[in-house]
Amino acid sequence: MVTQLKRFLVGEPIATEHQHNERLSKVTALAVFSSDALSSVAYATEAILAVLLLAGSVALGLSLPIAVGIALLLMVVAFSYRQTIRAYPKGGGGYIVARENLGDTPGLVAAGALLIDYVLTVAVSISAGVAAITSLAGNWGYPGLKEYAVELALFFILLVSLANLRGVKESGAIFAVPTYAFILGMLAMISYGLVSDWIFGSTPVTHAHAPEIPLTGEAVGLWLVLRAFAAGCTALTGIEAISDGVPAFRQPESKNASATLTWMVGVLTLMFLGITWLAHAHNAVPNEFTHETVVSQIARSVFGDGSIYFFIQIATALILVLAANTAYADFPRLASFLSRDRFLPRQFSSRGDRLVFSNGILALGVFSALLVIFFQANEIALLPLYAVGVFISFTLSQSGMVRRHLRIKEEGWRKGIAINGLGAFLTAVVMVVLAVTKFTHGAWVVLLLIPLLVLMFRAIHAHYKNVSEQLSLEKACKPAPLRRHTAVVLVSGMHKGVLPALRYAQAIASDNVTAVYVNLDPDVTVRFKERWQEWCCGVPLVVLDSPYRSLLSPLLKFIDEYDRRYSDDVLTVVLPEFVPAHWWEHLLHNQTGLLIKTALLFRKGKVVTSVPYHLER
Amino acid sequence: MVTQLKRFLVGEPIATEHQHNERLSKVTALAVFSSDALSSVAYATEAILAVLLLAGSVALGLSLPIAVGIALLLMVVAFSYRQTIRAYPKGGGGYIVARENLGDTPGLVAAGALLIDYVLTVAVSISAGVAAITSLAGNWGYPGLKEYAVELALFFILLVSLANLRGVKESGAIFAVPTYAFILGMLAMISYGLVSDWIFGSTPVTHAHAPEIPLTGEAVGLWLVLRAFAAGCTALTGIEAISDGVPAFRQPESKNASATLTWMVGVLTLMFLGITWLAHAHNAVPNEFTHETVVSQIARSVFGDGSIYFFIQIATALILVLAANTAYADFPRLASFLSRDRFLPRQFSSRGDRLVFSNGILALGVFSALLVIFFQANEIALLPLYAVGVFISFTLSQSGMVRRHLRIKEEGWRKGIAINGLGAFLTAVVMVVLAVTKFTHGAWVVLLLIPLLVLMFRAIHAHYKNVSEQLSLEKACKPAPLRRHTAVVLVSGMHKGVLPALRYAQAIASDNVTAVYVNLDPDVTVRFKERWQEWCCGVPLVVLDSPYRSLLSPLLKFIDEYDRRYSDDVLTVVLPEFVPAHWWEHLLHNQTGLLIKTALLFRKGKVVTSVPYHLER
Repeated sequence: MVTQLKRFLVGEPIATEHQHNERLSKVTALAVFSSDALSSVAYATEAILAVLLLAGSVALGLSLPIAVGIALLLMVVAFSYRQTIRAYPKGGGGYIVARENLGDTPGLVAAGALLIDYVLTVAVSISAGVAAITSLAGNWGYPGLKEYAVELALFFILLVSLANLRGVKESGAIFAVPTYAFILGMLAMISYGLVSDWIFGSTPVTHAHAPEIPLTGEAVGLWLVLRAFAAGCTALTGIEAISDGVPAFRQPESKNASATLTWMVGVLTLMFLGITWLAHAHNAVPNEFTHETVVSQIARSVFGDGSIYFFIQIATALILVLAANTAYADFPRLASFLSRDRFLPRQFSSRGDRLVFSNGILALGVFSALLVIFFQANEIALLPLYAVGVFISFTLSQSGMVRRHLRIKEEGWRKGIAINGLGAFLTAVVMVVLAVTKFTHGAWVVLLLIPLLVLMFRAIHAHYKNVSEQLSLEKACKPAPLRRHTAVVLVSGMHKGVLPALRYAQAIASDNVTAVYVNLDPDVTVRFKERWQEWCCGVPLVVLDSPYRSLLSPLLKFIDEYDRRYSDDVLTVVLPEFVPAHWWEHLLHNQTGLLIKTALLFRKGKVVTSVPYHLER
Repeated sequence: MVTQLKRFLVGEPIATEHQHNERLSKVTALAVFSSDALSSVAYATEAILAVLLLAGSVALGLSLPIAVGIALLLMVVAFSYRQTIRAYPKGGGGYIVARENLGDTPGLVAAGALLIDYVLTVAVSISAGVAAITSLAGNWGYPGLKEYAVELALFFILLVSLANLRGVKESGAIFAVPTYAFILGMLAMISYGLVSDWIFGSTPVTHAHAPEIPLTGEAVGLWLVLRAFAAGCTALTGIEAISDGVPAFRQPESKNASATLTWMVGVLTLMFLGITWLAHAHNAVPNEFTHETVVSQIARSVFGDGSIYFFIQIATALILVLAANTAYADFPRLASFLSRDRFLPRQFSSRGDRLVFSNGILALGVFSALLVIFFQANEIALLPLYAVGVFISFTLSQSGMVRRHLRIKEEGWRKGIAINGLGAFLTAVVMVVLAVTKFTHGAWVVLLLIPLLVLMFRAIHAHYKNVSEQLSLEKACKPAPLRRHTAVVLVSGMHKGVLPALRYAQAIASDNVTAVYVNLDPDVTVRFKERWQEWCCGVPLVVLDSPYRSLLSPLLKFIDEYDRRYSDDVLTVVLPEFVPAHWWEHLLHNQTGLLIKTALLFRKGKVVTSVPYHLER
């Protein structure tokens, strides 16, 4: 039954030989790898405005210079990543680059930061996608839909998880349509908005319920600007995706990947600046009453709330779901790398029925669903946790590149050091700014979790290393054949199920068989002994007393003593076990056999064997 | 660690030889067996008033004649139960009397009804006890305590459950003090109340927040009177306790038990009528705002809210907790009877460390806690479910007695038939009244659950009968010794843990040993084969292909085919299993071994053996 449900949900198993890697053209690759990066324009401007709003409407104008600063940072980081793409044509994620060039600990720090960020990518993107839908619904007469934001978000997480468990092929078409629809919608909105503002002047957005804007609030100072800047840095999340996925490009892989990265950053910068400009021109601000997104406010202000607005909102929601989907490729892959290197449990590196890393997908789904529930699908509340991890990984990855240039000294390594050094320096500065300004708003959780994760990775690694050393055949010698075999049959009563067990014990240990019975009720014991005489096949019986009615302790005591008799034998404990015809009928029988087996598992030198007697009905 | 926690909570194990039965004097027996019955006056009057209130204050006066009717019924039932006590000196609960005289199904119906009622006894009594405490707190300046009613009730259930898991001796002293304190308090309140009312006239209760009394409401008619009567019948719950516990009395058991029953019913009737009279005289009514109990209102009105009031409230709370405690003796005992007769899983008839039926106690605790949570510790809301089961058991038990008189025709059997016949008839009528009037208020749940429970009892019985028939040695013949032994060793890689398994397999099956390996990764397989040649000790190796990366299905297929080779052998599947030094490290290793064992358990003719290799650290 469980199997059938699984088949229905995730489909029939796929044979290993069908594993293949589709090579992507630049146009498709842009769609596949850029949804995470591009979709961040759906919340980055809003995140900046949400901070500036604390100082009242006077500060909102700062959004433009801040956005320009972020755009410059974006270009530096992109330029820096082009170096990584060239150096790692087989894919250079933060974990790989940092571990290879800086050592285990920086690699694990990058890995921990990235794992956390992938979980946040899902939670943030899905929540923002739901916000796009509820904003649309609010303007189209269904303002009540926002009450179901958490349920909608959980539904999308379930959907994306299932799709990934089935194994979505990263085939271009599915990704291309929403991504290019989103780019088209955004560029249309920005160009039409700018032109019509220029001709007719801009009109402020109308609100169903005016947002609360403090007349005076926090002072406009460096701290506020830094906080707003940090908030906007979420626009940079996802730009490392192309460097992870170089092998998926057509030949020449590195060159095509670099070109795609340049295109992506160009489009991203354009959209981010355009949206921030329009938000300022149309007075779009986060609205805590209607929960309408800033992009929805702009789109509605530019195009009215007709079909073009509808198109933009749906495209936004779709690209955000795709962005979450990107994390479903990244998280299980990174987890499988860590698992392969024995920093995570083995289970993360085994491919499931459908060739995907099922355990990684499930873990990502569960953690992101918990985040969505905890933060009530409010992406603006989630954002302070986001981006810190990304910048830690940026910094480590770029520093790793600097180290690599110094080590390999390939052609043009001085220029490479300059580029990656600038990238590493800037991202390090931004990382500190992010950590400090967002610390009390939630970033402390991430900064606490990363070292804990690193400790966990190390502990797991130590355990696996330990086990493999102990299991190593290096200095092992072939064991001598067994000289003697003793068997103890545990008997709870005289019935048909006991006979095969006795026969089996006699077969493996011939005359060295003893049966053991625990006396829990003297009357029953007397009757048992009589029947035993009749059916025992000559096996001697030991009856143990149990003053505390426990089966386990007298049995274990006896077995330990019995085992001590010979030093050169192996002791097999034989349990007669009758197997009911239906699995649920197991519940109706004492689970003592299981308890005995568990207790004996941790005692050395005993082998436990269940001899089953199958009931017919 | 788990063991230590258990020791701390429930104490050291007690040896079987310490099992003993204390014989109780009449005075102590009254305390031990009557807490359930006597404590019901704490809510029975309130239950009547809660129904009458629906018709406005005009109907409240009907409480007196209704209470008199219930008192008469009480006496008839008590008189009827004296017959049961005489006929069953070893204890005659509803299940035993009905099953012995009317057959299995009526017995099981009585058992199902009683099990449900025991759970309700705990939920109702604990909730009412908490209401006594929160009423006290409300009048002593802590009205906020009623917000924590559910938490308090769950705490008491936990406390009583733990006390019973430790094994409370039914020693008189613990029971005598609160029971006699309660009787003393109630009788003092009633006599002082009546006398002072007679001398000074009665004054209505003052309320912190006046209760809502509809001016006109439902029509005062037969339906309302019947519903109020049904509500008051909760006063009869628990009076069967003495007939269950006859063997605990001093000799002559039956005579002493009968006398105690008469005393108990006398005190109960007196208290019930007195409280109902005073409630009417002082205008005490259920108050949905303050949640103050009617008894608390009366006590406060009679004595003021000083120390005597405090004493009465605490005594009420204590006797209600004791009443819940009674169910903790009854439920596990009845469950053990049912389990002994194979109508419930065996686990209910095994005594735990502390000589108590631990599983019954745990089941009762869990179910009553769920009820308390679901009904938010509101005993008045729980009452419509209560008492229906009791009256079903009364009717079946009294009918059983009639049948017994007809069958045995002992001395005075005609008188016996008259008494039990009247009892059976009256309780049957009340049962119908209860079922009809309370049906839509919750009794339908009970009336649905009882047949479901009976079906479950029967299914369990059929299963156990089935198993014992199949395991019977009646027509069994001694099995021939095993002629041939084959062994298959499942190998996942070449390491130290494999060597003991190979050696073991060779010891039990000498030359008939085959090793099996599943090829999941061709490169790994090649390396494995090389190392195998070096270490295999001459055991032939079979490598299985697995196109879907599943370990299980190719293994199972191979084992089935391999087993078919010989018909006169037994096949042992040997699993090398390495045991980590710490139990939690199990999580870091694939659970494949467990899966294989489970899958093989349901396949006939295979014996599965794990040969452990213990890691040192």
